[in-house]
Amino acid sequence: MSLFRPDIERIAGYVPGEQPRETGWVKLNTNENPYPPSPKVVAAIEAAAHARLNVYPDPLSTRFRQLAAELFNVEPDWILPANGSDENLTIIMRTFVDPKEQVAYPYPSYILYETLAEIQGASWVRLQLNADWSWNRDACRPLIENSKLVLVPNPNSPSGTRWSDDDILALLPPNGVLVLDEAYGDFCDDPHSGELLQSDAGKRIIITRTLSKSYSLAGIRMGFSVAHPDLTRGMLKVKDSYNCNTLSLAAGVAALEDQQWMKDNAARIRQSRSTLTASLSELGFEVETSQANFVWATHPEGRHQQIFEELKNRKILVRYMRFAGADENEIDGLRITVGTDDELGTFINAMREIV
Amino acid sequence: MSLFRPDIERIAGYVPGEQPRETGWVKLNTNENPYPPSPKVVAAIEAAAHARLNVYPDPLSTRFRQLAAELFNVEPDWILPANGSDENLTIIMRTFVDPKEQVAYPYPSYILYETLAEIQGASWVRLQLNADWSWNRDACRPLIENSKLVLVPNPNSPSGTRWSDDDILALLPPNGVLVLDEAYGDFCDDPHSGELLQSDAGKRIIITRTLSKSYSLAGIRMGFSVAHPDLTRGMLKVKDSYNCNTLSLAAGVAALEDQQWMKDNAARIRQSRSTLTASLSELGFEVETSQANFVWATHPEGRHQQIFEELKNRKILVRYMRFAGADENEIDGLRITVGTDDELGTFINAMREIV
Repeated sequence: MSLFRPDIERIAGYVPGEQPRETGWVKLNTNENPYPPSPKVVAAIEAAAHARLNVYPDPLSTRFRQLAAELFNVEPDWILPANGSDENLTIIMRTFVDPKEQVAYPYPSYILYETLAEIQGASWVRLQLNADWSWNRDACRPLIENSKLVLVPNPNSPSGTRWSDDDILALLPPNGVLVLDEAYGDFCDDPHSGELLQSDAGKRIIITRTLSKSYSLAGIRMGFSVAHPDLTRGMLKVKDSYNCNTLSLAAGVAALEDQQWMKDNAARIRQSRSTLTASLSELGFEVETSQANFVWATHPEGRHQQIFEELKNRKILVRYMRFAGADENEIDGLRITVGTDDELGTFINAMREIV
Repeated sequence: MSLFRPDIERIAGYVPGEQPRETGWVKLNTNENPYPPSPKVVAAIEAAAHARLNVYPDPLSTRFRQLAAELFNVEPDWILPANGSDENLTIIMRTFVDPKEQVAYPYPSYILYETLAEIQGASWVRLQLNADWSWNRDACRPLIENSKLVLVPNPNSPSGTRWSDDDILALLPPNGVLVLDEAYGDFCDDPHSGELLQSDAGKRIIITRTLSKSYSLAGIRMGFSVAHPDLTRGMLKVKDSYNCNTLSLAAGVAALEDQQWMKDNAARIRQSRSTLTASLSELGFEVETSQANFVWATHPEGRHQQIFEELKNRKILVRYMRFAGADENEIDGLRITVGTDDELGTFINAMREIV
């Protein structure tokens, strides 16, 4: 007899992208920022390490909440800091979704949402996107109407698509909450400042953000959600008392204070994204217009898995991804993180040999 | 209409002990270690801060698992590191307990377990302890038989009681899992090395540990569980992919490597615990025999809340706690963390004025 909950026995669990521990890899597979964090972040960590690690952190992350609130033109009580936006998504699922309730998310997209729903004992449905990554609103509507939670990465992964506010508002479930997972929000050409939250619909929208990508801090696990205090109030009950540690909070505060560092790196990445897109197009790939720090590339001749393997043999890691299609076909392709220009040069040279 | 799950709407949420942000307090309320962590920990954090914070941490915390395993004479696949043992407890609840199932825990004890059960939609029952903090086995047996999870702090809080292996084995639920929350395990006069895990019963026992207390690292949020791989396997599915961050892992590894530092501090605290117990006894308090880094003190004349307030007026924080008794009486008293001898001197001097 298994001692686990049946839901846990049944599921496979989420498998994150490979994280080789040794150096020497060109790592373009998990959308990390190739540039280091602000030197002010490093200094803040050092100061915190010499301060009082023997006492608990501030359970409400007061200073961090103030800074994050300013970015979205809201009050600090809209902000819930967490141990990576992964934890924000977990907290959201546990706050709003009861077992047997339904969760919806676009597909192809970030399949972690399925695992989080399954752990909660909830069901999930896929909002199948059109081949050009646009929404089939008529097909989606009844699924959304029956969902307690709709989770939408914007920009989307793996496509890098950024959907318009008009598209987004059509996804608001009439009896539930819409989560906009904006892990890649800072890489958009025209990032928003929380305008959508000020609308009436905004009272049922939760935005999640992470410092992993644009702030070059995947290692410190800091994320946060932005949502009306009426929603945040419940999420606060679910979070562990001290979910953010002293060092990550110090790093997070310093990172948010140094907006220019983040913006300069995001601009460099946008520049490299253009070059990468052009180079892949020259090699015969179809590359989606990306507003994130990665691109989704497919080749008319397929062979994506083989290309992935041949790159890996050269110690270049990208992400090979395969999804079920709307019809019986599978969709597959390569998701390539925008690294430094040097890394991307190495990648493109290898691709010239392989393709 | 509330958008929250009804369970979340209903609960109040757990309220941790006060964490004043300004200095100048004698803080004896949340069982922090008054001594700083090993200088090797600080050095490890500094090195990690200068390394690669832009990439994700090791999702399996390989080195940390090796070191923790050695302390309990098990293999690394018995260890699950987490963002504080709070997260271990949350992961355990989500792995083993379905909504409507029952959780049991001793009372008076750590009431966080009730909140965690409520968030999961489970019910909880209290295993009421005798007035001398011993077990009423006959009364407990039927409650344990119907429980999926039994959670027992050992040593207990607020009493500091350490229960024997014989007592512990009587708490194993026949159709469930026994969790031994050993946050204070290193402060025992005679700490164990995982012997209980080697028995047949050990396959259904999970030990949780934290680096917050004995390793002086409440600020970094590192805890771990020790359990047979058949149990750990399910918990791994529930944890977030990167639940431990690069800096906490570096600190945790360095802390586990420097056992002597921890043991020296634990020995100092045991020494101060004896002195504190004697001083409080002289002042007319009844003090429980404690195997933890705090003592539970009650005065025949009561007035515990008033004493707490008068201490607070002097910027000395202890914990005033009140519990429902087996009969209609309430149990209340003061839980005092074993601080430095200086802090305890200040505390005792104040007590001489107050009592």
